[in-house]
Amino acid sequence: MKSVVIGASGYTGAELLRILAFHPEIEVESAAAASHAGQAISGLYSSLLPFYSDAVFADVNTQVEEIASGGISVDVVFLALPHGMSQSIVPKIFDRVGLVVDLAADFRLTNPATYQKWYMHKHQAPEYIEKAVYGLPELTREELKGARLIAAAGCYVTCSTLALLPLVSAGLIERDSIVIDAASGVSGAGRSIKADYLFTEVDENFSVYGLKHHRHTPEIEQNLGATVLFTPHLLPINRGILATTYSRPTSRFVERLGADAEDSGHEFVISEMRNFYIEEPFVFVTDSPPSVKASLGSNNAMVHGTYDARTNTIITVSALDNLVKGASGQAVQCANIALGLPETAGLASLGLHP
Amino acid sequence: MKSVVIGASGYTGAELLRILAFHPEIEVESAAAASHAGQAISGLYSSLLPFYSDAVFADVNTQVEEIASGGISVDVVFLALPHGMSQSIVPKIFDRVGLVVDLAADFRLTNPATYQKWYMHKHQAPEYIEKAVYGLPELTREELKGARLIAAAGCYVTCSTLALLPLVSAGLIERDSIVIDAASGVSGAGRSIKADYLFTEVDENFSVYGLKHHRHTPEIEQNLGATVLFTPHLLPINRGILATTYSRPTSRFVERLGADAEDSGHEFVISEMRNFYIEEPFVFVTDSPPSVKASLGSNNAMVHGTYDARTNTIITVSALDNLVKGASGQAVQCANIALGLPETAGLASLGLHP
Amino acid sequence: MKSVVIGASGYTGAELLRILAFHPEIEVESAAAASHAGQAISGLYSSLLPFYSDAVFADVNTQVEEIASGGISVDVVFLALPHGMSQSIVPKIFDRVGLVVDLAADFRLTNPATYQKWYMHKHQAPEYIEKAVYGLPELTREELKGARLIAAAGCYVTCSTLALLPLVSAGLIERDSIVIDAASGVSGAGRSIKADYLFTEVDENFSVYGLKHHRHTPEIEQNLGATVLFTPHLLPINRGILATTYSRPTSRFVERLGADAEDSGHEFVISEMRNFYIEEPFVFVTDSPPSVKASLGSNNAMVHGTYDARTNTIITVSALDNLVKGASGQAVQCANIALGLPETAGLASLGLHP
Amino acid sequence: MKSVVIGASGYTGAELLRILAFHPEIEVESAAAASHAGQAISGLYSSLLPFYSDAVFADVNTQVEEIASGGISVDVVFLALPHGMSQSIVPKIFDRVGLVVDLAADFRLTNPATYQKWYMHKHQAPEYIEKAVYGLPELTREELKGARLIAAAGCYVTCSTLALLPLVSAGLIERDSIVIDAASGVSGAGRSIKADYLFTEVDENFSVYGLKHHRHTPEIEQNLGATVLFTPHLLPINRGILATTYSRPTSRFVERLGADAEDSGHEFVISEMRNFYIEEPFVFVTDSPPSVKASLGSNNAMVHGTYDARTNTIITVSALDNLVKGASGQAVQCANIALGLPETAGLASLGLHP
Repeated sequence: MKSVVIGASGYTGAELLRILAFHPEIEVESAAAASHAGQAISGLYSSLLPFYSDAVFADVNTQVEEIASGGISVDVVFLALPHGMSQSIVPKIFDRVGLVVDLAADFRLTNPATYQKWYMHKHQAPEYIEKAVYGLPELTREELKGARLIAAAGCYVTCSTLALLPLVSAGLIERDSIVIDAASGVSGAGRSIKADYLFTEVDENFSVYGLKHHRHTPEIEQNLGATVLFTPHLLPINRGILATTYSRPTSRFVERLGADAEDSGHEFVISEMRNFYIEEPFVFVTDSPPSVKASLGSNNAMVHGTYDARTNTIITVSALDNLVKGASGQAVQCANIALGLPETAGLASLGLHP
Repeated sequence: MKSVVIGASGYTGAELLRILAFHPEIEVESAAAASHAGQAISGLYSSLLPFYSDAVFADVNTQVEEIASGGISVDVVFLALPHGMSQSIVPKIFDRVGLVVDLAADFRLTNPATYQKWYMHKHQAPEYIEKAVYGLPELTREELKGARLIAAAGCYVTCSTLALLPLVSAGLIERDSIVIDAASGVSGAGRSIKADYLFTEVDENFSVYGLKHHRHTPEIEQNLGATVLFTPHLLPINRGILATTYSRPTSRFVERLGADAEDSGHEFVISEMRNFYIEEPFVFVTDSPPSVKASLGSNNAMVHGTYDARTNTIITVSALDNLVKGASGQAVQCANIALGLPETAGLASLGLHP
Repeated sequence: MKSVVIGASGYTGAELLRILAFHPEIEVESAAAASHAGQAISGLYSSLLPFYSDAVFADVNTQVEEIASGGISVDVVFLALPHGMSQSIVPKIFDRVGLVVDLAADFRLTNPATYQKWYMHKHQAPEYIEKAVYGLPELTREELKGARLIAAAGCYVTCSTLALLPLVSAGLIERDSIVIDAASGVSGAGRSIKADYLFTEVDENFSVYGLKHHRHTPEIEQNLGATVLFTPHLLPINRGILATTYSRPTSRFVERLGADAEDSGHEFVISEMRNFYIEEPFVFVTDSPPSVKASLGSNNAMVHGTYDARTNTIITVSALDNLVKGASGQAVQCANIALGLPETAGLASLGLHP
Repeated sequence: MKSVVIGASGYTGAELLRILAFHPEIEVESAAAASHAGQAISGLYSSLLPFYSDAVFADVNTQVEEIASGGISVDVVFLALPHGMSQSIVPKIFDRVGLVVDLAADFRLTNPATYQKWYMHKHQAPEYIEKAVYGLPELTREELKGARLIAAAGCYVTCSTLALLPLVSAGLIERDSIVIDAASGVSGAGRSIKADYLFTEVDENFSVYGLKHHRHTPEIEQNLGATVLFTPHLLPINRGILATTYSRPTSRFVERLGADAEDSGHEFVISEMRNFYIEEPFVFVTDSPPSVKASLGSNNAMVHGTYDARTNTIITVSALDNLVKGASGQAVQCANIALGLPETAGLASLGLHP
């Protein structure tokens, strides 16, 4: 199948090129970039030289027009653009392309009012919101089959949702009690050329950002049907997200455990998670809290949970690579499902350690 | 005044040597180490070469015996040893030395039963616990004046306590609702030669440790008179601690703000913190959340707080250098107070950035 | 085909497990470790959990005995042990196994006297030295076909040799003039639990080691038939080697260029390198100096060269991942050749960026 | 004495503010910045908050005009601007200020033709070149006394010159044989907001830049009276420079050593260096190769040298903090000398480790 990557000069775009280079069924027909059109792909990403040695970035607008006009025919379009741009592109190409996978936040929130509140502008293509299937296979696998527009879940959202979903959906966590304290590597900000992301500002540093107002909050709330306080931190690493969550157990949790909570709480939480993910190809429940390194460069997510009887708190810890399971790997996994390909096609790998 | 540093080959010991090199009143008479006795100080710490060019590490046992026997006379002894060793040394030297400052956890907990519960062995010198003054000047300055045995506060504990103390002591935070999510640079583990602290295991990584059971928990609880859930993480940086805390406001907080909580909550929290620390030489309340880099190499601590009306949560963020305000700088600050020296002697500096 | 990895708990061993997990022809029958026998592989390397979820490390001695006694039958044995151990294992298993690939230095030097001089002990199995084929496909591909014992080239050696080989073998570089200034990530030291490799000692640091005496020197000299001064540095990164070399051009080089050296020297050097590597699947000549990041996690090596007329110096810059093309990837590439498999089997991937 | 820092929002400017905060004789009257005028200093550098809590950046042009017009009277002006700007400012303020210390390259090269060749534009204030004293105390201490315009030496240049000067000036090194392979932390590039200096591009990376053409080359050549091939690399660290140099000994060196070169060469090189620096307050000759960490945050430089008889090469290794001894510390040291203050005033400190 033929694909086009639009927004290929950013980190999620380049990661799509890296993954698709060895995908058995989907090949990259063209890689378009806004600010680097006409330049060699390997000039920006020397790591891609061995596979894309002669390729240059196409221009985003030209590429979109060609698709919109039927000038070229493609099976899948991946949109890896800064937030807000997909809203103007999707209406132009939707009818011409079998599948559009959007990696941005444009079509993730199902309620346009919620979108407007957190993103502080009116959605430009609300009629496409309901055509979009939310792209988190562990939550929406059935809807993804045959989907024509996918809004792939965000990085923090995937990490947090995968940890909490088994427990929230089983009614074990109070839905107004969730605190998510998370940390991400710098690539989560994309290839943004801002002072905040200079090596000298991030290295040997650690800081909170978006306190109280991060836009991933409503997306997590939508997935869980719960209220969450979400606080992201910036880690001095390239890739990787770790989310530590704290929540109060419901009376149902307490009843299930009985007098035995202190001793059996941990095992109960772990076994709930294991049962939930037993069939999943990319989610692994670990015996001890995972570290971000376990997933580096792979589509594997690691989740862990426990119960602290002393403070009556359910704690989860989860980790993944924000550019793979948190973005481009997830987009390919969703595309595989939508297109009827094996779900793991092009995605089988293990994390680098060290 | 003459001082001896015992445990000088570890990171807090070496940091004492760095700070005391230019202290106007306290000089280092001897630096003793258990595993490196007889070796050049500059062989282990080339950074110390310019001041300690010909010095070698003395032997810990020999040094302790000399002090105990009155063979040498010193004004201050700093104990920078792995946890548990000070209990056997303090009884030997207490009567011979004007001031002992212990950087370990041996004499921090005032209740021996609490000590035994978290450290899982019986305290070896319980009669010295009540002689010890807890060394956190912002909490115990008056008691420190003229103290003869100081148990300097720990790194995580200082960072967390400084953030929460103004709000807890004003009755604004529910004492059973505090979650502390913190992260530390690797030097917090000391110079431990374990696989977990290899560069290749820590770099590009981020992980939880001591989940539910970290020994700093009861020390924070003792300072605040509250129950806390404390979760430390390991950061891929050398120095620095950041603590993010979440807690429920009391009805008193809500009453003080009235209908105006959403708008004025932030200012109220900040102003409470500012008033509390207005006279402090080393604690600074920042307008936005601080980052660990702000304190690198200095004794300065940065604290910030806010209120999230949406989830009815008080959030604080605080940062410091774990080896300075979190250990050796704090020890010197406490010694200055106890000895009647200017509190900032030897400690005036600004953090390195970048 | 069935393989056994001996020394699987070290970094090159774990990297073999990572690569072989998705090798189309070679599967891992057993992974043996000296110090972690009986432990879960995923306990040490959580990244390997998705593929090796239930596997435990076998014991090295037991495994060697089983192979030696014919108790199990394997096609390939990979030895990923600390230096010196292969000398005692190879004689035991050589007759029982189709192919032994040694990742250590034991069988790389063809002259036992040179071995003894640099390693400062007598070789324990000199009769196997001449049975061994040196494992650097770009230099020894023909000899590798059908080999039964391969001494895979070292990491610094591969990086330096690939850069200099085209120019030395064309007679363009004076053979007594070569300076190699190189730097490696910390994984080059293996999983050594020593103070020198603690995060706190390496992070934000850069230093020379093995000055004048590094054991990779004679191996580079053997490959090039030249005398080299080789100086390695320790980089605060996990993986990656960069080698910068300086050498004097021969009169032949000067004659080829004529009066035009200043203008055409660069192009000439680059074109010599391109012609040399035009058929190679894993060596890429870059237009500008490569960085280590270009190869992260992949078997791709990047080489570049130029001529500085002002100082009459040929300069090369080359980069690779020391654990892949510098160790485990190379071992698999050599095994593929020896076993008649496609040379790139299991090795097709692009470097992670960022 | 009153000083003004012009260019205070960059890293060398902020480092001047950090150092001068506790200088016993020089105080900062004003800190001017081009792009951040009117903003709080602590907004950009939270580390400076404790000392500069209410200060804002003045505007560079306004500040320069005020000095030029005599509107304010200052004793010292530090220029910490991007290269090229000092040429237009110095002529305006030179007659109004007792001492101008320029941290840029504008007045370092004594030959305007050399300047034009390497910087590729005509010098704008050549008449001030001969008024300027080159600011490297170990080379030009006597000329610095009473100087009115100082061109402080660059970071790579200081590191390389300090290592080679004792040996070159003693006639032990062939002046056409010097290769300098050096590496710097990212702060050496200043606070440049470019893609090349993003965390995600530098972290876990290592690369060559300015190959064959770096502008520090002629400055090193001027200091040594020699031809050098200088190759800088970019290190994934904030601060620090390490320079490794390779050169051929002269016949004088060989004669001095006689048949004994292999055994005594090392000691001879070291003793030459020690004798040369015996009186220096900030240069330390180390027994083994220094690492960059030894100087972090301090004005101390570490130098080491040896002789490799096998390849007949003199090797030196030297290290310093590029923002202190390589820039702002050096500027203060030079100012101290010029103003008749104690040379070490405000500069006594030891490097941070870890």
